[in-house]
Order: sequence, then structure tokens, then C-alpha cells
Amino acid sequence: MSPLAITLDFQRGVLKPCNNVIQRHLSDMRGMYLDDTATEEAIGQSDPLLYEVYQYDVPFETGQLLVVTTVLQPGKVGDEYYMTKGHFHEKEDRAEVYLGLQGQGCLLLETTGGEFKALPVEPGIVTYIPPYWAHRMVNTGQGEFIFFGVYPADAGHNYGDIEKTGFAKVLAERNGQPTLIPNPKRQKR
Amino acid sequence: MSPLAITLDFQRGVLKPCNNVIQRHLSDMRGMYLDDTATEEAIGQSDPLLYEVYQYDVPFETGQLLVVTTVLQPGKVGDEYYMTKGHFHEKEDRAEVYLGLQGQGCLLLETTGGEFKALPVEPGIVTYIPPYWAHRMVNTGQGEFIFFGVYPADAGHNYGDIEKTGFAKVLAERNGQPTLIPNPKRQKR
Repeated sequence: MSPLAITLDFQRGVLKPCNNVIQRHLSDMRGMYLDDTATEEAIGQSDPLLYEVYQYDVPFETGQLLVVTTVLQPGKVGDEYYMTKGHFHEKEDRAEVYLGLQGQGCLLLETTGGEFKALPVEPGIVTYIPPYWAHRMVNTGQGEFIFFGVYPADAGHNYGDIEKTGFAKVLAERNGQPTLIPNPKRQKR
Repeated sequence: MSPLAITLDFQRGVLKPCNNVIQRHLSDMRGMYLDDTATEEAIGQSDPLLYEVYQYDVPFETGQLLVVTTVLQPGKVGDEYYMTKGHFHEKEDRAEVYLGLQGQGCLLLETTGGEFKALPVEPGIVTYIPPYWAHRMVNTGQGEFIFFGVYPADAGHNYGDIEKTGFAKVLAERNGQPTLIPNPKRQKR
């Protein structure tokens, strides 16, 4: 393939050209937020767009890299902040790099071995997701939370494990502040 | 290894924390510019710093990624703009991604098969270096040229081939403008 220049709009997060745009609405994340009643009410009213992913696809081969930006909207489902689905990589030993561009958020990470970590992200913060760490971004700010990412093109996505178990902790509003609380849905399983 | 947050200063290009800083002075690039007399004069006077690389090293294993920023100074050796050494990856099928943060420059690329490409870079331009393409950055602007990069940690660097042959074209000032010209040193080999 040929070398390529892509324009990244730091303010809006859009990549041009871009050959893979994904939109996630709340209905794509049924059961992933704590408050199922609030989830169904919001889906019934407007099924809000939670985030858009702009990815430039190249062949999914070892050695190639995927460039991706994510625009995560501000908002809450019940008292839980909007977040991405979160995933392990299908090839679990593939890392990922994020760079915060706009807004305020938090990267939640965990391993199957029970380790958990939360890293605040803002413009200029690079986060390194090592091999074997599942990752989810959460928008804890008032505006759009936008970040740039690069990961190996052969990594693949395993969303299923996180859909089943969730993360060990969730980010909910407590006393007006984003607060990490243990995931009560996880306890019940 | 544990997840990690690194602060990237968009204005200065510095990474904190950072465990690998490389400085390249002109004396590290003897013979790589067209004008050997101008090179030796400049080395004799001040041996100017051409660029600094801030890299966060992780284990050089397949699946890991390296995060790197480069601060390339403005200036010329003779009429040729300051540039990086340029390299193929040792594992030639490893790609690389750059994101322009400050200043104006140009990415020169070529394959061993004789293909050549030049891509202008400025803030917000993401360039994709596919597998098998050697790559060199050139500062064609008045100020520092700063860019962020991500590449596979197992890629390695092959500087030797470019040291021997140079790139097919070089960026020199002609009528006050950065201009791509065929590399006369290459013709002589």
C-alpha cells in the first residue's frame, strides 16, 4: 500500500479521509449501565448517540497499525457517565496508545487476573494500555471527550467478556463529582 | 507491565515521564547532507543540535508499542533543510504513524523497489508509513517542527541503508522555497 496523509481535526475529532465510521447508540449497550430502567427510558425517548469512532482501516495484518479517533458525548445514564463498550484485544498481547485531544475523561483498565486501574485523561495525556489489559473510556466532563488512538491492526476486539462481566468499578456521580464505585452488577454474578 | 500515563507537551514536544532521550547533532550525520564543506564548517563552529527524540521505552516485544515525539530544529546545512537520519525498520513489515503537532515539515518516503513519496506535514496531519517504506522527516518551516509517533516495539531500526544511499530526493531551498531535487550524491554511487 501507499503512504497516506489523513487530516485530524483536533476540535471535532474527525479523520479525513476515513473508511470506517462507527456510531454507538445507547441501544447498542443495553445492560452495560447499572440502571436498566434509565437505560430503557432513554432508548425510548431518543436512543442517544453515545460515541462515534473514526478509524482508517488498513489490512488487518501483523505490522500494520490502525489510526482511530473517538468522540464520546457528555451525559449520564442514571448517575453513570457515558462510556465506551470496552474490550480486550482478541490477540490479548496487543497494546494500544491513546492521546487525549479535547475534554476530560477517565480510562478504566483491568486484567483477567483481577488488577484494576483508572487513569484520568485530558488534552496532552498519552495513556499506554499494555498487553492483556481490557480498556474503556468514560467521559467525566461537560463537553465532548475526544481522543486519538493507535493500535496493531492484527489486534482484533473481544467485546464479549466485558459485556458479560463489566469492569470491576464504574464511574458514577456522587455529590456532584465523578466517583469510582464498585460495580454492583459484577457482585451479583 | 502496568498501564501508564505520559504527559505530552504539545508546544515543546517533551514527554514526561520519559526513559529514552536521544539528541542528534550534525556530527552524528556526517556525509548525509549534500554539502560536505558546509557540514564540516558548521560542526567546527557549534556542531548544532538538529533534533531530539523523546521515547518511552517498553519491552521490545511483538504486540507492544513505542510512543515517541521528535523536536526537529529549523535551519539548513548549505541550502538543505535540517532532517532526521531516516531509516527502514529492521523488521521491514512494521508500519509507523506520525501526527504533526507544531511547525511545518515534509515526510520523505521510499521503498527499495524505487518508489518515492513526499507528504507535507503540519499540525493535525496524520501520516501513515506502511510496511517496507523508509522514512525521514524534514523541517521546511521557520520554527521547531514537532511530531508525535507510534510504532511497533519490535520494529527495530535500520539506519545503515539510508546512510549509504540517501533518499532519491532531498529538500533544498530554491528561490526561497523548499524544493524537492534529485539527490546528486545518489547519482554518483
